[in-house]
Amino acid sequence: MAEMRPQAVPDLLRTWGERVEAALDRLLAAPDEASRPLFEAMRYMVLGGGKRLRPALVILAAEACGGPAEAAMPAACAVEMVHTYSLIHDDLPAMDDDDLRRGRPSCHKRFGEAMAILAGDALLTEAFGVLAREVADPATSRQMAAELASAAGAVGMVGGQVADLEAERTRSRDPRLLDLIHRRKTAALIAASAVLGALAADASEHLVRSLREYGGHLGLAFQIADDILDASATTADLGKTAGKDAAAGKLTYVTLYGLESARRRALAEADRAVDALAPFGHSADPLRDLARFVVERTR
Amino acid sequence: MAEMRPQAVPDLLRTWGERVEAALDRLLAAPDEASRPLFEAMRYMVLGGGKRLRPALVILAAEACGGPAEAAMPAACAVEMVHTYSLIHDDLPAMDDDDLRRGRPSCHKRFGEAMAILAGDALLTEAFGVLAREVADPATSRQMAAELASAAGAVGMVGGQVADLEAERTRSRDPRLLDLIHRRKTAALIAASAVLGALAADASEHLVRSLREYGGHLGLAFQIADDILDASATTADLGKTAGKDAAAGKLTYVTLYGLESARRRALAEADRAVDALAPFGHSADPLRDLARFVVERTR
Repeated sequence: MAEMRPQAVPDLLRTWGERVEAALDRLLAAPDEASRPLFEAMRYMVLGGGKRLRPALVILAAEACGGPAEAAMPAACAVEMVHTYSLIHDDLPAMDDDDLRRGRPSCHKRFGEAMAILAGDALLTEAFGVLAREVADPATSRQMAAELASAAGAVGMVGGQVADLEAERTRSRDPRLLDLIHRRKTAALIAASAVLGALAADASEHLVRSLREYGGHLGLAFQIADDILDASATTADLGKTAGKDAAAGKLTYVTLYGLESARRRALAEADRAVDALAPFGHSADPLRDLARFVVERTR
Repeated sequence: MAEMRPQAVPDLLRTWGERVEAALDRLLAAPDEASRPLFEAMRYMVLGGGKRLRPALVILAAEACGGPAEAAMPAACAVEMVHTYSLIHDDLPAMDDDDLRRGRPSCHKRFGEAMAILAGDALLTEAFGVLAREVADPATSRQMAAELASAAGAVGMVGGQVADLEAERTRSRDPRLLDLIHRRKTAALIAASAVLGALAADASEHLVRSLREYGGHLGLAFQIADDILDASATTADLGKTAGKDAAAGKLTYVTLYGLESARRRALAEADRAVDALAPFGHSADPLRDLARFVVERTR
């Protein structure tokens, strides 16, 4: 594994996070008075901080393939909008019922349940609108939409959330189910982020495949690290409620395998992510750093 | 206005409804065991009847422009998926809180709130997936996605629902607000259906514009007729709870202008819809019939 430059990744995330935030701010300007309340709820969550891991990944993947960051910006914004909608809906009382997100009241606590449902719906819809309107090449635009729909939909993120709720209901301890949940609920959208970056750079199928594999392992490493943080960090550090998984008897890598084994698995997935980058030279160094970063982060 | 052939439209809706239903049945086959519960909830609502007005409109608009129905089928399915997701979310306790839809328990009554939220999310996502995967020409696919996102999103259907809830909360009697609500909440997606049909047929910009105008007026006529039916029909006839608007003191054409005036407005909108079809010959006769049908329907 390439040597770690500890400050590189937080700097990259901050830099790209700010550029993505500026682009999202433009894309989500309320066009008229009547739509202002809805856009206020959408903007509250989208512009309310967050690690910006997924949009940064879109851009770093594009740059790894030799493409300009600018071409990846619409896809970066679309992915962040989809991620944010999923947080809003996951926090709802009927779902994970969480009052806190990114260190602030969750969307339904701030604006009410109806508005939170609708703000999520609107963000999901506008994500596809951004890809359709803002991506220059029609074939690329369409390919990105297919990729995003597949990663976010019934056999992707939404499917993973259903499986997660089902596992909670049945108090399942099935390791294959845990694997499926994490692949669909988290890894699918992270893998799609890497793929969208490659598509924005008009990369060869070979490189797209490598980045899909990288993103899949990165996503699993990220989710295992999330499980570890839930079990070991504080609510103040996370900006969301900590310790919920154990309290809910939830199926996670930590509750199933224990902290130490979960740590080893996270590191192994990060290594596999780096291995998948073998076809790339130094242009993929930030992606290599990112793989190490996601398992070492503290929030 | 062309002379009415009363049986023509119900026959058309039934015929196209069945073909669209068969296509939706194929598109929404659960690909694996883990996703079966989610697909069951999606299929329950999508394949659970309904007038199929929007998908039929997509196909009839394509045929009016000389295109084959087959080319319009992906867009017809996508529009029906978006319409169904909106019904599922509108029925939720936090929104209109309705137990009955299409003559059966609404989605959350049957599967629980969490599953209903997720089934709606998945249908919205898959709608864009269908356009991205199933529309042959990339430029057309992308144009359709932009049109659908704009009609369904924050300044379309979702925005209309927000404005509707806001009007209910403030007990507004503002006729301009009523107009905006109906345009966004209902007419936008109906107008988009007509436009998607024209795009599927690769129609000229001139014809696309005419069909957008037709669809806008048709949508308003449809919504006013809906308000009239809510006030005058029975729950058994409608397959959803009747008389809710008046009970909730809701802002509708009937509560604002009275039944007779609402009827005149609906007929006037239907006439305007037909007028917008002036550039078309007999190929648009089914669309002319449809305009009369939506204001004369009994459910």
